[in-house]
Amino acid sequence: MKSIGVFDSGVGGLTVVKELIRQLPNENIVYFGDTARVPYGIKSKETVIRFSIENILFLLGHDVKLICVACNTVSSFALPVIKNHFRVPIVGVLNPGVREAVYATQNKRIGVIGTKGTIKSRAYELEIKHLDPKVKVTAVACPLFVPFVEEGWLSGDVVMKVANHYLKPLKDAGVDTLILGCTHYPVLKSVIREVMGNGVTLIDSAKQVAIEVKKILSQEGALNKGKKGKLDFFVSDNPEWFSELAERFLGKIVKNAKKVNSV
Amino acid sequence: MKSIGVFDSGVGGLTVVKELIRQLPNENIVYFGDTARVPYGIKSKETVIRFSIENILFLLGHDVKLICVACNTVSSFALPVIKNHFRVPIVGVLNPGVREAVYATQNKRIGVIGTKGTIKSRAYELEIKHLDPKVKVTAVACPLFVPFVEEGWLSGDVVMKVANHYLKPLKDAGVDTLILGCTHYPVLKSVIREVMGNGVTLIDSAKQVAIEVKKILSQEGALNKGKKGKLDFFVSDNPEWFSELAERFLGKIVKNAKKVNSV
Repeated sequence: MKSIGVFDSGVGGLTVVKELIRQLPNENIVYFGDTARVPYGIKSKETVIRFSIENILFLLGHDVKLICVACNTVSSFALPVIKNHFRVPIVGVLNPGVREAVYATQNKRIGVIGTKGTIKSRAYELEIKHLDPKVKVTAVACPLFVPFVEEGWLSGDVVMKVANHYLKPLKDAGVDTLILGCTHYPVLKSVIREVMGNGVTLIDSAKQVAIEVKKILSQEGALNKGKKGKLDFFVSDNPEWFSELAERFLGKIVKNAKKVNSV
Repeated sequence: MKSIGVFDSGVGGLTVVKELIRQLPNENIVYFGDTARVPYGIKSKETVIRFSIENILFLLGHDVKLICVACNTVSSFALPVIKNHFRVPIVGVLNPGVREAVYATQNKRIGVIGTKGTIKSRAYELEIKHLDPKVKVTAVACPLFVPFVEEGWLSGDVVMKVANHYLKPLKDAGVDTLILGCTHYPVLKSVIREVMGNGVTLIDSAKQVAIEVKKILSQEGALNKGKKGKLDFFVSDNPEWFSELAERFLGKIVKNAKKVNSV
């Protein structure tokens, strides 16, 4: 029984795994977190592509039928290149979120938040414009959000102040829809909600990604039927740190993360 | 004319380079910043040792007569191992800072702040106890300080609140001497000074490291005489990002950072 391969620079991709488990409970999932080289969000396009190819080769060694890139930086920088390289279907987190946002916006003003790499790539902006050229896009990098999430600063004065600072241009622009363009950000949803107000729709692409994965596997007749799928977690460093943080993203404890030296 | 090799996970080591230039203006310096895999502070001992060996091999390819490990995480985790592996003299940032702190303390209460890796290693504590078993050591990890420095949050409410939070155990312990056990932290010196008060001596090991380097080169008759030394900067990723940040650490602009794919 083949598996769905998922990779991310670290733990963030677990927000996508959570949704895959919910929507596709019979699938086996093999996850790889590149914790030896985390984070990717501050690194160059060339380096992110190189790391991504190594991660995909690792997953291909584990009999996967589809690969889900559960990282916005990789999806922004590397997806067109890696889709060309490999025969296995590869699903990113960018397009599904964009489609939902373009569908959701009423006033044609969409905001995007992400890492420096994601925002610098302008991938979200280009994809939104491709779907609807009339939409005005405001994109802002929020580089402290990832360390806040990983250090557990999820509420309180400090994170509210930083969130107010980062999100001000989006409020000023009057966006009615905001794409959480980094797999860490759903963990800060309540802070982002409080700053942006209830009138703004927050788009967390994990749900849409799982729908896309289901669609592709269904078209290929590759959906697993029958018994509950199993989960395997591999990391390039620090399985203890990964396991500790996993609960925050996945909503459950990960006990069996295995360290590999392959990348 | 052989060079002094210096490496760090990224830009932090430039605070040490600044002091080397000041004390040893005639020396050539070759710097390597592992910006493709930065940061090291959250990674395991095993991984930090592996990365360090690769960085040293890179520097050995550039005709160095001494290697300065300008990174506290590496100095804490890897120094005993790598000193055993290589014939070139290797100077870390830990011992020089410890010696100065033990010399400076009056009340025999020393504080240490650093990355998670550095604090977890207990290397500072063991080294201090080795020099003076009567000293009481309080060690605290300050994981948000590195992202604050790299994102330019160097003053104001947010960083003061986080500093107050992190430094409280050190104030409670009544330390009269505080080791800034991460090469990024001197950039936050004024914030740390404000929280700790003027009665506490802040130890920034860069100065002592340069003294140590000078002593070793002098003993070996390997000091350069004559003309002003030259500086070469190599990084494993993002030379633009490195150049942009360099001024904050080095006090001057770095124009010639070169990207290498060797690690």
